[in-house]
Amino acid sequence: MKVLFLGDVVGEAGRETSRIAIGRLRQKAQIDFVVVNGENAAGGNGITPKITYELLRYGADVITLGDHAWDQREIVPFLADEPRLLRPLNFPPNTPGAGSIVVQGNGKKLGVLCALGRTFMTPQTDNPFLTVRPVLEAIRRETPCILVDFHSEATSEKIAFGRYLDGQVSAVVGTHTHVQTADGKILPGGTAYLTDAGFCGAHDSVIGRDVAPVIQRYVTILPQRFGLATKGLQADGVLLTLDDLSGRALEIEPIQLAI
Amino acid sequence: MKVLFLGDVVGEAGRETSRIAIGRLRQKAQIDFVVVNGENAAGGNGITPKITYELLRYGADVITLGDHAWDQREIVPFLADEPRLLRPLNFPPNTPGAGSIVVQGNGKKLGVLCALGRTFMTPQTDNPFLTVRPVLEAIRRETPCILVDFHSEATSEKIAFGRYLDGQVSAVVGTHTHVQTADGKILPGGTAYLTDAGFCGAHDSVIGRDVAPVIQRYVTILPQRFGLATKGLQADGVLLTLDDLSGRALEIEPIQLAI
Amino acid sequence: MKVLFLGDVVGEAGRETSRIAIGRLRQKAQIDFVVVNGENAAGGNGITPKITYELLRYGADVITLGDHAWDQREIVPFLADEPRLLRPLNFPPNTPGAGSIVVQGNGKKLGVLCALGRTFMTPQTDNPFLTVRPVLEAIRRETPCILVDFHSEATSEKIAFGRYLDGQVSAVVGTHTHVQTADGKILPGGTAYLTDAGFCGAHDSVIGRDVAPVIQRYVTILPQRFGLATKGLQADGVLLTLDDLSGRALEIEPIQLAI
Amino acid sequence: MKVLFLGDVVGEAGRETSRIAIGRLRQKAQIDFVVVNGENAAGGNGITPKITYELLRYGADVITLGDHAWDQREIVPFLADEPRLLRPLNFPPNTPGAGSIVVQGNGKKLGVLCALGRTFMTPQTDNPFLTVRPVLEAIRRETPCILVDFHSEATSEKIAFGRYLDGQVSAVVGTHTHVQTADGKILPGGTAYLTDAGFCGAHDSVIGRDVAPVIQRYVTILPQRFGLATKGLQADGVLLTLDDLSGRALEIEPIQLAI
Ligand SMILES: [Fe+2]
Ligand SMILES: [Fe+2]
Ligand SMILES: [Fe+2]
Ligand SMILES: [Fe+2]
Ligand SMILES: [Fe+2]
Ligand SMILES: [Fe+2]
Ligand SMILES: [Fe+2]
Ligand SMILES: [Fe+2]
Repeated sequence: MKVLFLGDVVGEAGRETSRIAIGRLRQKAQIDFVVVNGENAAGGNGITPKITYELLRYGADVITLGDHAWDQREIVPFLADEPRLLRPLNFPPNTPGAGSIVVQGNGKKLGVLCALGRTFMTPQTDNPFLTVRPVLEAIRRETPCILVDFHSEATSEKIAFGRYLDGQVSAVVGTHTHVQTADGKILPGGTAYLTDAGFCGAHDSVIGRDVAPVIQRYVTILPQRFGLATKGLQADGVLLTLDDLSGRALEIEPIQLAI
Repeated sequence: MKVLFLGDVVGEAGRETSRIAIGRLRQKAQIDFVVVNGENAAGGNGITPKITYELLRYGADVITLGDHAWDQREIVPFLADEPRLLRPLNFPPNTPGAGSIVVQGNGKKLGVLCALGRTFMTPQTDNPFLTVRPVLEAIRRETPCILVDFHSEATSEKIAFGRYLDGQVSAVVGTHTHVQTADGKILPGGTAYLTDAGFCGAHDSVIGRDVAPVIQRYVTILPQRFGLATKGLQADGVLLTLDDLSGRALEIEPIQLAI
Repeated sequence: MKVLFLGDVVGEAGRETSRIAIGRLRQKAQIDFVVVNGENAAGGNGITPKITYELLRYGADVITLGDHAWDQREIVPFLADEPRLLRPLNFPPNTPGAGSIVVQGNGKKLGVLCALGRTFMTPQTDNPFLTVRPVLEAIRRETPCILVDFHSEATSEKIAFGRYLDGQVSAVVGTHTHVQTADGKILPGGTAYLTDAGFCGAHDSVIGRDVAPVIQRYVTILPQRFGLATKGLQADGVLLTLDDLSGRALEIEPIQLAI
Repeated sequence: MKVLFLGDVVGEAGRETSRIAIGRLRQKAQIDFVVVNGENAAGGNGITPKITYELLRYGADVITLGDHAWDQREIVPFLADEPRLLRPLNFPPNTPGAGSIVVQGNGKKLGVLCALGRTFMTPQTDNPFLTVRPVLEAIRRETPCILVDFHSEATSEKIAFGRYLDGQVSAVVGTHTHVQTADGKILPGGTAYLTDAGFCGAHDSVIGRDVAPVIQRYVTILPQRFGLATKGLQADGVLLTLDDLSGRALEIEPIQLAI
């Protein structure tokens, strides 16, 4: 099967970028599932129910989140109602929503998990290395094809997570830094790995935000309004080819699609 | 002119990797200057006088450092004696050593600066956006060809620093995460930019360290001995082509050279 | 001379607390100067021009700030107009406002400085140990009686700052943690020292905030609205007795005044 | 019953201080149990088996630890053998040792728990608010007299933890900052609370370390050797009086005993 994963969708520009990218990539290849990180889809900060449906309409089968999961308060009750929207799995046991799902289509099944790193990250979640275990075991009973979005800052933690899950999932793809890394590979155990997928939105920016106020912030260390940028639309992500039967990754192709 | 910049050299494997990579790349292209980040050259932790000379012998013209600059105590007095070894410029005024240099050869001059980011970083240095200014002005009086190694964690800070210096230096290349990013480009003002150059050393690893103890650390959160890995030698970096007269970047070519 | 210093004034409850405390303490002792930390005076977040005047009206001669200095945007231009309101001195050179002042009354002069620590603190300011030096020298030309509000988290940094300034200022009093420490003393060089002064406001709380949502935050790690508490009014601070001529501290008396 | 709790014992000076303090305080009052935080007992960094026995010999019934628990490697296997030495309870399930114990003597039983905070703290442990629950329930089946050492940095987290456990344990006493706070009280539900107990050792210091190199570190931000201080011996802690039957705290008396 082919799975398209798109990095953090940032604001309206990111949503439009993802819409066009999904359409174009579908014309070039038969894509079975689309997974999109939507943690910045609502003006850069979290996601709303309305925007969740918008991304699903654009073709996303599953939407993952990250440290910005809870930026929009209306999402807390909504998470319980919409299983295709995943918050990181390593929140406390009673947290609304789920951190994983198995979706199906074309007679195929894909498990998707979303976890949050802990190094240089807030909030302080439970250990992703430990909490991912039982979730993974449950999903593996349904399908060997599993994609993990590891939303995390430190390269050390991301690579360790990829190596840790090598041979047990089809792919570990990092998000959060909004900059795609150049280390896409298939690990020895058959798991596709990329430290960071990048982001979808206006790349003539500082990770999606207007350049000038971000610079001003670093120069003056005074608060600034960080408006979203609008130019240089680009969709970052990966296109994964998985062996349906074994779940092994056959190919990981990085995507940087200018719109 | 052509400038080769290599990301963090990690341990003995990294030194050997850099030696071979410099040799091979010099066979393919006329390289005028070689700059190497050496902050992990001594067993992963800092650098020694002896290893400084080793890297210079391998062809480095300038060696930059980062947050690990002071890991080996003998380096503190040595920094004052060896101007080709740069510690980050944004340390307090009386810090031994310098954060910049102008080197020359083949009738050409290259300025090199090294600065440390502050987000998710220790130690707590002075503001790199402010302290880089006077250093830059002094160097620009000598040459318009200037390479900046911005040793920093957060993508936001790195991109902002690149944009901030766009048009004033030839290149801003990030280091520290040990993972090369896929966003190499020439910014509108003519400055080549890459968020992170990656590292030189054993890539069958977690950023140069053995995989198993790093995973064990994340799983148990107990202290582990992080030995250096030895397999999968690869040199990460960039090959820059600069216009000698204007200092503008003409090309930035990412390097991931398997040894 | 006698100087009253009050810890962080939190919200309306804190302002009312400080008003009453200043009045009561003035009935018991001849107080020459009152200095109040006002970084949380506006609903817990920063301060406004109006609230600045309110605290001055209550008897404050100088108002210090901290990491919350810029929470209210209208304060940025106002700082340039009102010298009795101090932002931390270790912001970049062009930052609006000042970090120190010399006030006078009753034929006496008191210098007041405000600095921000860097450990576990945002924003990332300049090194307070270095930037305080020239400010201090300028003030010492006017008066030997100097009070320093060191707004800082880590006890190590606070005690080191106190020791560093011992013999050069009359008092170093910490703020920011909102919990008064029990280590008030006069250091060997004659400087009064207290790691933290505590806060003014509703102490039936978690550092001024309602208890339930803060607990809920730690339990669920989900965002909560942190309302300000209203019960258990108490003014925390210190009453300092200084030798006018030498500036040496003669006494440091911790204040925890229930209102 | 009366329970003496002593804050972090720092190095040899701290051990000697605790020995003398326990002896002197026992002469003044009938003390049923002594609990000592020993995370810095071995030269400032962790604890060894030998030093564990030394502190037990001095009269400690239970020794608690903190973020420095694992500084000495030999302690890892030892923790499984010596139940009176507690590492924080919120480490992963398979961590050697335990985070709680019930000790008995004089026909009385005291439960002791040790937990680690997460704000501004490494390593990244499990949520103490959640993991303390089942441990507490098990202990409450044995005794209502329970002392909690919450080893934590941020005052917000510490006070929240105290309020959270109010009415369910006899006392929550914080450690880690090495500075005693002045907020000892009995909370509405009957739980004694103090944000930080302080430390045992040489107080003519920066939290137990020599003053000069710590200042030098903040001034230069270069590495320094932080030797342990030797002067100004003082034992910090609290003396708790508990109602044996209900476990309610009757009194909390802060201790700062100069040796
Ligand atoms: Fe994001
Ligand atoms: Fe994120
Ligand atoms: Fe490095
Ligand atoms: Fe580094
Ligand atoms: Fe405050
Ligand atoms: Fe503060
Ligand atoms: Fe300690
Ligand atoms: Fe500690």
